[in-house]
Amino acid sequence: MASEPVLIAGSWRESEQTGVFQSANPATGKLLPAHYPVSSWADCEAALASAHAAFEEMRGMSGEKIAAFLERFATKIEERAEELVAMAHLETALPKSPRLADAELPRTTGQLRQAAAAARSEVWRQPVIDRANNIRACFGAIGPVCVFGPNNFPFAFGSASGGDFAAAIAAGNPVIAKANSSHPGTTKLFAEAAHDAAVETGMPAGTIQMIYRTSHSIGEQLVTDDRVGATGYTGSRGAGLALKRAADAAGKPIYLELSSVNPVIFLPGALLEKGEDLAAEFTGSCLMGTGQFCTNPGLVLLIEGKPAEAFVAGIVKRFEEAPAGTLLSESVRKSLHESHRILSEAGAEVLCGTGPGNGAGCCVANTLLRVSGAAFLRDPETMQTEAFGNSSLIVMASSLNEAAAVLEKLEGNLTGAIYSASDGSDDEAHDRLEPILRRKVGRLLNDKMPTGVAVSPAMNHGGPYPATGHPGFTAVGIPASILRFTMLQSYDNVRAHRLPAILRDDYAGTTQRFIDGRWA
Amino acid sequence: MASEPVLIAGSWRESEQTGVFQSANPATGKLLPAHYPVSSWADCEAALASAHAAFEEMRGMSGEKIAAFLERFATKIEERAEELVAMAHLETALPKSPRLADAELPRTTGQLRQAAAAARSEVWRQPVIDRANNIRACFGAIGPVCVFGPNNFPFAFGSASGGDFAAAIAAGNPVIAKANSSHPGTTKLFAEAAHDAAVETGMPAGTIQMIYRTSHSIGEQLVTDDRVGATGYTGSRGAGLALKRAADAAGKPIYLELSSVNPVIFLPGALLEKGEDLAAEFTGSCLMGTGQFCTNPGLVLLIEGKPAEAFVAGIVKRFEEAPAGTLLSESVRKSLHESHRILSEAGAEVLCGTGPGNGAGCCVANTLLRVSGAAFLRDPETMQTEAFGNSSLIVMASSLNEAAAVLEKLEGNLTGAIYSASDGSDDEAHDRLEPILRRKVGRLLNDKMPTGVAVSPAMNHGGPYPATGHPGFTAVGIPASILRFTMLQSYDNVRAHRLPAILRDDYAGTTQRFIDGRWA
Repeated sequence: MASEPVLIAGSWRESEQTGVFQSANPATGKLLPAHYPVSSWADCEAALASAHAAFEEMRGMSGEKIAAFLERFATKIEERAEELVAMAHLETALPKSPRLADAELPRTTGQLRQAAAAARSEVWRQPVIDRANNIRACFGAIGPVCVFGPNNFPFAFGSASGGDFAAAIAAGNPVIAKANSSHPGTTKLFAEAAHDAAVETGMPAGTIQMIYRTSHSIGEQLVTDDRVGATGYTGSRGAGLALKRAADAAGKPIYLELSSVNPVIFLPGALLEKGEDLAAEFTGSCLMGTGQFCTNPGLVLLIEGKPAEAFVAGIVKRFEEAPAGTLLSESVRKSLHESHRILSEAGAEVLCGTGPGNGAGCCVANTLLRVSGAAFLRDPETMQTEAFGNSSLIVMASSLNEAAAVLEKLEGNLTGAIYSASDGSDDEAHDRLEPILRRKVGRLLNDKMPTGVAVSPAMNHGGPYPATGHPGFTAVGIPASILRFTMLQSYDNVRAHRLPAILRDDYAGTTQRFIDGRWA
Repeated sequence: MASEPVLIAGSWRESEQTGVFQSANPATGKLLPAHYPVSSWADCEAALASAHAAFEEMRGMSGEKIAAFLERFATKIEERAEELVAMAHLETALPKSPRLADAELPRTTGQLRQAAAAARSEVWRQPVIDRANNIRACFGAIGPVCVFGPNNFPFAFGSASGGDFAAAIAAGNPVIAKANSSHPGTTKLFAEAAHDAAVETGMPAGTIQMIYRTSHSIGEQLVTDDRVGATGYTGSRGAGLALKRAADAAGKPIYLELSSVNPVIFLPGALLEKGEDLAAEFTGSCLMGTGQFCTNPGLVLLIEGKPAEAFVAGIVKRFEEAPAGTLLSESVRKSLHESHRILSEAGAEVLCGTGPGNGAGCCVANTLLRVSGAAFLRDPETMQTEAFGNSSLIVMASSLNEAAAVLEKLEGNLTGAIYSASDGSDDEAHDRLEPILRRKVGRLLNDKMPTGVAVSPAMNHGGPYPATGHPGFTAVGIPASILRFTMLQSYDNVRAHRLPAILRDDYAGTTQRFIDGRWA
């Protein structure tokens, strides 16, 4: 069957497909007209060959040239903003404004421009020079990067536009983007804009390539191929761990951002102090974007007592009153129902929701579940089932000790937050719980919801397994996110004219270098 | 059977053993008298519980206190130098002087003192502060670290004394050391000195613990335990990859330093210019320490012609004339023979050696093998079989193109070296080969042998898989080596007094911080 073209080796061409698929409009449940190919290994092979050649060409390319490409791409995104927003809205049901047009699009172009600045300054290289031994080291590009984007941020985490793409390119790596199957049309538009920008700025043909879908086995073959440097994956735990197993066995770095329940602890004093405000704050964070954020607060830890019960009553009321948004796809809806079933069967009480929501299309009522600390501790693994969407599980601990025991059983998470009273009345409880939470999460918050993920050099959008595959790296925040797609390269007694410019004695740039034990 | 005690939870105690073993003197082949226990899971469980408690105590501990421990330990090593050197000589047959007493021992104490300085300055934390968003990030300790040391550096890479130990402790992690079975007595002496230093400087009981051996399955259980933060392993590929599979499946970071053949390319112009000198230089590097270095030059790539043939004749003569040293153990001897058998059967010609050597005890004659580029390319995997010891494989390429094809087939290595003429006559060949070599190795050398591994901040003792498990990290060089045993920790809106000191506005230290996009 005729299908949309793939972008391979610098041209839009017919896929050597093994099948086709369509995306659907989640607001109506209806299939969209375009047919997208499922790529065979032949498509991947061609893309790998071209990426390998592009990588050789990008070696020694100036950061200035890479920056020019990223900036041109950002401009092209702005020029095609209306079209991108319309397509993404159709494929994801995310609101055009403010979400897509006014929040996610500028975030995306901002990331690309930050990545361009980092490419230009080469700050990510972290040059270290030991003149006495004439040994010099810096980070360098790792090789072609495969990017698998998630369903929930079609722009800012998109495989041909988002943070992984920007970080991989900034370090001088070509990208092979695999579209998310829920928004292939959006990804295609980004790949068009990226490709046009690459042509206009004289980048190699294989700098950006894009396919829509493969079988699982071909996906695994792709990330383990000799020509691949590394992979970035954001998405569901099941698919991500299958790719991780394959990549690990081949010794290929893979950076994953998987599920996370993002525990939030409201200590009693904080609830006494401003329980109503916190109920509103929590509800807003949990239902924002129909709860479809990696950092959605999916687990609330409370300590029994009047303030906790009043808080629960307050959030139930708010969840019941708030409109239920449209979910990203029918599969997200099914998966959310399935998580509710699992949690209920394990003993969680339904406080509100779990049924059909009052919104359009793929929709589930705003849901709150509740379980005692003791019940949580009887089956902590099941109780940490992620319910991706407008849903959260309240864990009511009978004591501070039980709350600590619950935290000890938590898996790795992206974030963890503690709300405590301003008068110091929660400090003892805080000091008991914080050390446990700190080693379980990448980002620790105080008195703040986790859903905002600022593109800041101090951001850590990462955390211990299984939130990600490695706790030393972040997917958001430049220049740190670039390090995922680099390798450490030492130069020992290498002749001066053969060194990367940033390691030479006559380096004229302004980036800080660690020379003979001192920053210069 | 009575056996030597293990160090668990702050005391030397009887192992709950499943068996015992003895080490042997490789110079005589005779077993040494002491019996060492093979630990059951009960030993590991006790060590993990104590390490977990120690980690909690070390949280928030000042870098100054950790530094004092590391420095006291270095002093204790110096005080017990004679005893350490004697025991290591007995167990490894490495020369007492200069190797053990004058090279490896000062390297070891130097590393510990460098690690102490890094602990004190906290430079490894890499603090990043975004005041506008009030988000702050730095690296923090990852949790108890298991260290598996190799046979070839009983001091500098020893599990209770070497680079992994120093790096893990510097970041605030307790260490569970697994002795190398070829030098358990040496490891025990280091653990005694470390434990005494820990007691004297008031460190928690579980800061340093030591066992001698476990079964493979218990070793795998150890590195995947919830309470473990990460593992450092240096040793053979087979055992290392088994641990990697287990750790990967559990999402536990593991840093491995495995086999490496360390290709050295001598281009024709360099050989014409000073072939005799290079033959002497190569021979010295390849036979140093009976070739038992991770960075031993085990693969020599030449391009056919008179200079190459003269070079080969020169090194064969030197290999035949040089005394053959004693290998580290009978198993090293067997493994070297086995590698020679595999390479010969795959078509490598024996130029010299492979038979019994003229040295004492475990000994193999200095060996050179030779294969054509075409034969190498017919079975590149087999031809890269590491022959750990006083041995190297010469690959004679028929052309520059064939040399490039050989490099394309190389696995990841720790190092790669290129010798080229000073008059520019090799430059074209260099420029063709260097880009291929660069992405295969962690450290690239010019006109220098790879066997010296300076403890320098610019060192990369690492490289792409299968030389290591991740190309972004180094096992040698402080502060970079410390990063292996850390996690990235972001603090979002966290109250000022709860922040690590290095992230506070009132930080009084001198370490560079990246504040609001600028180094301060």
